[in-house]
Amino acid sequence: MPVLRLEMHPGRTLEQKRAFVQEATRVTVEILQCPQDTVEIVITEVARDAWAKGGKLRSDG
Amino acid sequence: MPVLRLEMHPGRTLEQKRAFVQEATRVTVEILQCPQDTVEIVITEVARDAWAKGGKLRSDG
Amino acid sequence: MPVLRLEMHPGRTLEQKRAFVQEATRVTVEILQCPQDTVEIVITEVARDAWAKGGKLRSDG
Amino acid sequence: MPVLRLEMHPGRTLEQKRAFVQEATRVTVEILQCPQDTVEIVITEVARDAWAKGGKLRSDG
Amino acid sequence: MPVLRLEMHPGRTLEQKRAFVQEATRVTVEILQCPQDTVEIVITEVARDAWAKGGKLRSDG
Amino acid sequence: MPVLRLEMHPGRTLEQKRAFVQEATRVTVEILQCPQDTVEIVITEVARDAWAKGGKLRSDG
Repeated sequence: MPVLRLEMHPGRTLEQKRAFVQEATRVTVEILQCPQDTVEIVITEVARDAWAKGGKLRSDG
Repeated sequence: MPVLRLEMHPGRTLEQKRAFVQEATRVTVEILQCPQDTVEIVITEVARDAWAKGGKLRSDG
Repeated sequence: MPVLRLEMHPGRTLEQKRAFVQEATRVTVEILQCPQDTVEIVITEVARDAWAKGGKLRSDG
Repeated sequence: MPVLRLEMHPGRTLEQKRAFVQEATRVTVEILQCPQDTVEIVITEVARDAWAKGGKLRSDG
Repeated sequence: MPVLRLEMHPGRTLEQKRAFVQEATRVTVEILQCPQDTVEIVITEVARDAWAKGGKLRSDG
Repeated sequence: MPVLRLEMHPGRTLEQKRAFVQEATRVTVEILQCPQDTVEIVITEVARDAWAKGGKLRSDG
């Protein structure tokens, strides 16, 4: 702990994930003042037909 | 926010998901009195060998 | 299962929560076609200084 | 309820999952003193390129 | 990782929580074959007016 | 979406939370290339007697 969970739509590259966990960890360490090794991040991809906003699936645009 | 998360077994059609997010959003807006556009719903499907009740996997029925 | 999780800001009355779980369960049963007794709902209240949108805490308006 | 959620890397066999839900349910029933039938467990597998520790994806090990 | 999340109603003693995390960790290590130090457990207490089953809040009996 | 969830121990100031959501949002926008307004962050504080590592509650040191 701290644990960060990121939910996002699919489509990002491995390189983007790599950069995200590096930068998000740095921000966490600097601002929350915790050892770098304790920061964990879990990424979950949510398909567009599994997420709705305002009552409408994203896949229905 | 509000955010609703639905966990269910796979097998529902896209049409059922579409109807669910529409109706669940309507209920949320009416009862919790929030703008429709702020309601988000995330659907997660949990396979039957990834869910247990009473110490037994559902796939072991 | 199905399990529904609702995250919302504090401030709703017990009566609103009662109505929400009743109606959300009804919608779930009707559309996803599952026995009423299997539907569980967990409500989490998220304080305004614990939720941000666009990089700004809600409590900072 | 109680509900247990297990996040782990992929690679465990069905037999391990079966043993886990059986034993984890037994521990829950004995220590938390709840009826066995009320214990639910949901297992989520998190790929190694979706989990980071210390700012580094596990797949970059 | 593995991470275990336990949701339960309030009312358990610190001693019960202590025993639970000890035993649940032991089961996880033995069955999933992971180093003890990597097992994390997060406990969340869910009030009876924040959990519903079958469309009815638990606090409404 | 994206949604970020941060779990951490209590004790951080409002100013730290404010800085965290600002910086974490900036990192998300820059790396994942999404509009700033779509980034949401939910912060959950986990007490030391509700989190265990290696089978031992953090409050038991």
